[in-house]
Amino acid sequence: MNEAGGINNLLQDQGYNAWLSYPELPQGSLQEQYVKWCGAVSVTETDDTVQAALAEWKQGVASMLGIEVQVQAEAALADTAANAPEHSDGTSAGHVIAFGTFGSGNPLINSVFAEADIRKVGREGFAIRTSAEHNCIAVGASAPAGVLYGVFHLLRLIGTLQPIAALDEAVNPVNSLRMINHWDNFDGSVERGYAGRSFFYENNRFIGDMERVRDYARLMSSAGINAIAINNVNVHALETLFISEYLPQVAEIADKFRVYGIRLFLSVNFAGPMQEGGVGTADPLDPGVRTWWQNKAAEIYQVIPDFGGFVVKADSENRPGPFTYGRDHADGANMLAEALEPFGGIVIWRCFVYNCKQDWRDRKTDRARAAYDHFKPLDGRFKDNVILQIKNGPMDFQVREPVSPLFGALTQTNQIIEFQIAQEYTGQQRHVCYLVPQWKEVLEFQTLAKGEASPVKRIVDGSLWGNRHSGIAAVSNTGNDINWTGHLLAQANLYGYGRLAWNPELSAEAIAAEWIALTFGSNPEVADVISRILLDSWEIYESYTAPLGVGWMINPEHHYGPNVDGYEYSQWGTYHYADNRGIGVDRTVKTGTGYSAQYIGSNAARYESLEECPDELLLFFHHVPYTHVLHSGKTVIQHIYDTHFEGAQRAEGLLSSWQTLKDKVREDLYVQVEQRLTGQAAHAKEWRDQINTYFYRKSGIEDQASRTIY
Amino acid sequence: MNEAGGINNLLQDQGYNAWLSYPELPQGSLQEQYVKWCGAVSVTETDDTVQAALAEWKQGVASMLGIEVQVQAEAALADTAANAPEHSDGTSAGHVIAFGTFGSGNPLINSVFAEADIRKVGREGFAIRTSAEHNCIAVGASAPAGVLYGVFHLLRLIGTLQPIAALDEAVNPVNSLRMINHWDNFDGSVERGYAGRSFFYENNRFIGDMERVRDYARLMSSAGINAIAINNVNVHALETLFISEYLPQVAEIADKFRVYGIRLFLSVNFAGPMQEGGVGTADPLDPGVRTWWQNKAAEIYQVIPDFGGFVVKADSENRPGPFTYGRDHADGANMLAEALEPFGGIVIWRCFVYNCKQDWRDRKTDRARAAYDHFKPLDGRFKDNVILQIKNGPMDFQVREPVSPLFGALTQTNQIIEFQIAQEYTGQQRHVCYLVPQWKEVLEFQTLAKGEASPVKRIVDGSLWGNRHSGIAAVSNTGNDINWTGHLLAQANLYGYGRLAWNPELSAEAIAAEWIALTFGSNPEVADVISRILLDSWEIYESYTAPLGVGWMINPEHHYGPNVDGYEYSQWGTYHYADNRGIGVDRTVKTGTGYSAQYIGSNAARYESLEECPDELLLFFHHVPYTHVLHSGKTVIQHIYDTHFEGAQRAEGLLSSWQTLKDKVREDLYVQVEQRLTGQAAHAKEWRDQINTYFYRKSGIEDQASRTIY
Repeated sequence: MNEAGGINNLLQDQGYNAWLSYPELPQGSLQEQYVKWCGAVSVTETDDTVQAALAEWKQGVASMLGIEVQVQAEAALADTAANAPEHSDGTSAGHVIAFGTFGSGNPLINSVFAEADIRKVGREGFAIRTSAEHNCIAVGASAPAGVLYGVFHLLRLIGTLQPIAALDEAVNPVNSLRMINHWDNFDGSVERGYAGRSFFYENNRFIGDMERVRDYARLMSSAGINAIAINNVNVHALETLFISEYLPQVAEIADKFRVYGIRLFLSVNFAGPMQEGGVGTADPLDPGVRTWWQNKAAEIYQVIPDFGGFVVKADSENRPGPFTYGRDHADGANMLAEALEPFGGIVIWRCFVYNCKQDWRDRKTDRARAAYDHFKPLDGRFKDNVILQIKNGPMDFQVREPVSPLFGALTQTNQIIEFQIAQEYTGQQRHVCYLVPQWKEVLEFQTLAKGEASPVKRIVDGSLWGNRHSGIAAVSNTGNDINWTGHLLAQANLYGYGRLAWNPELSAEAIAAEWIALTFGSNPEVADVISRILLDSWEIYESYTAPLGVGWMINPEHHYGPNVDGYEYSQWGTYHYADNRGIGVDRTVKTGTGYSAQYIGSNAARYESLEECPDELLLFFHHVPYTHVLHSGKTVIQHIYDTHFEGAQRAEGLLSSWQTLKDKVREDLYVQVEQRLTGQAAHAKEWRDQINTYFYRKSGIEDQASRTIY
Repeated sequence: MNEAGGINNLLQDQGYNAWLSYPELPQGSLQEQYVKWCGAVSVTETDDTVQAALAEWKQGVASMLGIEVQVQAEAALADTAANAPEHSDGTSAGHVIAFGTFGSGNPLINSVFAEADIRKVGREGFAIRTSAEHNCIAVGASAPAGVLYGVFHLLRLIGTLQPIAALDEAVNPVNSLRMINHWDNFDGSVERGYAGRSFFYENNRFIGDMERVRDYARLMSSAGINAIAINNVNVHALETLFISEYLPQVAEIADKFRVYGIRLFLSVNFAGPMQEGGVGTADPLDPGVRTWWQNKAAEIYQVIPDFGGFVVKADSENRPGPFTYGRDHADGANMLAEALEPFGGIVIWRCFVYNCKQDWRDRKTDRARAAYDHFKPLDGRFKDNVILQIKNGPMDFQVREPVSPLFGALTQTNQIIEFQIAQEYTGQQRHVCYLVPQWKEVLEFQTLAKGEASPVKRIVDGSLWGNRHSGIAAVSNTGNDINWTGHLLAQANLYGYGRLAWNPELSAEAIAAEWIALTFGSNPEVADVISRILLDSWEIYESYTAPLGVGWMINPEHHYGPNVDGYEYSQWGTYHYADNRGIGVDRTVKTGTGYSAQYIGSNAARYESLEECPDELLLFFHHVPYTHVLHSGKTVIQHIYDTHFEGAQRAEGLLSSWQTLKDKVREDLYVQVEQRLTGQAAHAKEWRDQINTYFYRKSGIEDQASRTIY
């Protein structure tokens, strides 16, 4: 066992095991407590999921505590504490961990938990209790997946050095759907992927590396994920065969997922009946089309009985959809929902719809309005196994956007929020940008839909409107890079997303602390430094990139690196309208696009008002002169200069901070992060200089601090 | 036969036969004269090239005049004119066309041309004479290729309705090397190709469509081309095998070329000995490397006895080269030249060298200086079978650049000029841009290297410095599109390039008139309209794109469409430095990069002087306020607005002009040009608006004419 603060350089996995690497714990009273408790485990169920939980438990305990767990597979009550002899390895013969489903035959579970306890545990939840009476820590759940979540929970408590001697709680996920969307293509590429290529597909075939698929499922499950769509929402020709020819391979992945409590979803092409099915139309009201999808659903459930359902991007960015036939989104989604309904499947219909092909000369059409304008009129028209998936903001995962006004506008429709773990616009996993604080802000946003107590988190968890389905989805940031996410620190986003989806009340700080301890071990100095890096990173990235909520100052297509006018003359509705006097998009009702009116009450008023609009969204809502004075007291132009100089400097600071950890974290991890942060520091300067130079050249206004602008 | 002005819609080749489609001639006195002369031809040589000339002659006469040529293959003097009976088809039994090499046994040739005539005819030239005495039009040449050129000449005279009853001239090409560079890659792509894919390669194999290769050789030969490099100067891994494994396939192409008087060249990778040869170095002074190339040359000449030589891009844009070994361009080129020397081969060494990776913040480093700075010091150090290939301008084929100052600077070095027929920066064959006027301007530029009479054309033809090798090269604009060049009107550039390479004294107007007649026939109304379109097109394209010589306001990488800041913050040295006060690159000696001093005498003074610098190059040499008044009397900003409004309007005018030709030119040709011009008219508006808006926003200066700027 290592000393507190020491590092274990034995594991050289380059981050593959991520937050399940179970670093060896430092010696001390807690470690002694864990050792005492963890010598034996009682598990009586042979269910795959419960057995997976057992395997995880054994691996975690062995790695963190260096002890081999004794498994008591038979149904027997443990010795009482009083009779427990102490073993030489510190374990105690009387102490036992027990886990299983309620009423499953494990007498410890049945003894520790009463009916009142069980009533508190939902479909995926678990109860955990340290029972002095039975000398036992018991994890009981309604279903095997809950057992697994409970075991991950207990492992996390140990890994983060929490006491376990007096546990007593029922834990349920707040959101019922906690989903990951892969944008993996069958050819092996990953749309907006920054961590290598797909680990599902290569060259239009299934790779079949089921060990990696299982490890992935383990990681996802441990973070709380229970649904994964394995293919890109932009469905290409060969991918339409996933629901026919390639169903056996899809089912094989579903089998691995199932063990870890994860339901598999597929993205489907709305034009499937035409492309793959030989039906002459994809009109959702056509009986032939309906039959085709019904038969298709039956085929799928034949081989994947717990199939989740379909994810659909229709009538957007040139994807086919119901509009072709004069139908609307509700017609399209309901038709698919009808097909899945008999089997308990759901349709997840994306609201990222803006086929407007905007002319940059037109300042009245506004892409930000599109999702609301399309879907608000359809509220109440969707079947109850349809879920609308709404991006967090009205545009597209910018570093700063207002919250989508659809949250609050749809009162009779199942809805989930969509985040992007993939850092498409936030440094592409070459820059560190811990996104949990951003997601938290969005989830805490008060929509005012039902008065003050209507934050987004209460809409997406279904409690505000009492939706049948609810939850969170997010675009994956993974690929076949050995560390899954390219940038090691981007693992914190993947982990953090899952944890937040499970429980939106967790703070960004707490999630960061968990991830750091589970990944790097429990050296407090290491934790302090990495936590600071993570928690500062979003603000830093924002500060040297597009200012004050204006967004989009990036290179077109690949979306990496500065390009102030990159999207200024495009068809995508992504403009800043900078001229020599000012900048920003007028989205007010009075003189602009009227977008601000999509918000409710005082939110609408605040955004409409030049005086009240928060600084960080000023240029999203208003076109102002460079000399406009912010609430901060600075002019817009001086704000741009200051934040960009400071941001680049702070990016350099991230690197210096990290470098204080040399010899304090595992070298294989240290080196890769140092390399990325070095790149970020250099690239942040490029951002600083291009943005500052652009605005200096355009405005002609000098920097008050007379720093070098080219 | 059709009426004068009618169109022949029988041929529906979509432009495949290009200027060798031999449109049927209108009836009239000239047509009667041609028919009278062209009934019989006397050819006694069996040489492939002479036979190709004969085949061409028969095809041309049949197509233009509708008569079948009687071939007199035996050596016999023709009847005298006095005895010539008139036949019913208008041909005359006594009249004959004769062609062949001097002293080859054709008694007509030997009789018509005296020793004094023969002395005037160079290696590739020909003499042509209408001999009343022998009732014969004789084409005599020193070599078979000259015969072919002479026959193409005579066919061109007929196709353009020139009288042939009193011909008497000796015609020699002015430039000895008249070369085409293909940027075709073995995978079938064409770097900067805008007319489909390669017709040589696909998917890393030789296509082997030898009919297309022959037709291509015919076309090139008829325009005067005598050298073709068949692969991209950026040589990829598999293409290095062109000089080993794939030599037989290369030789097959060379065989086709040879018939048409064309020598085949290959682009080679300087690192060949390492990549392909198993030699551990590519150091040009290494004996092993020298031997490797010598053996390689011997192998090549074994199968291609008239192999032209190597084209080399070294030490530029990340290509390998002698710099790796601390050697210079002369060391590198001379080593290859030594290998080719015994076989009469030459090395063409490109001067497009600028690996500077410029920082956009640095206003002193100047890519425009690079070629001169690299090669001027090496003048006199190259072997006499090395040719430096110098791009026409110092940057990269912009719509407007000054002439490269290397012309005039190198007094002891073989050099050829490089043009780009491919419209990389001039509308990519989606816009019409007839480039012959641009090339003419460059060729006429007075370098002052030897006083006033030192135009570029006299440097590249070798006469100014008495170079052993000289000439012109150009990047091809062809691909496997049915009409070879994508835009039908881009054929005029391909044809015009060849004609200009043959004789730089030809005017852009004359070349256009030839091409139009040979392609569309001889309707004067058609000729007027198309000629106007062609001759206006460069000015029009320039007017709605980057203004006043500043260049580069295009989308990065693919180089199509407006993007004012597209290259402003790049590493490529391509900046305009526009700010809210002014724009342009200061390349003066006094305050800028000093580039202007690379010119000689009054040229240097003119460019250095803000007052004297020609308007069209103002922003290439000077950074000026938008309010700077041009020689035209307009301010810079008003010039930008005016030219862009006018340019877009004139682009629309090109379409309307073309539309007056409906039913006057063949429909298959009409339709494709109309389509391209429609696209151009729309795209020109996009250019207009983006450029005007950019500068309006930046400068804040209103358009005096109050037109709409967004």
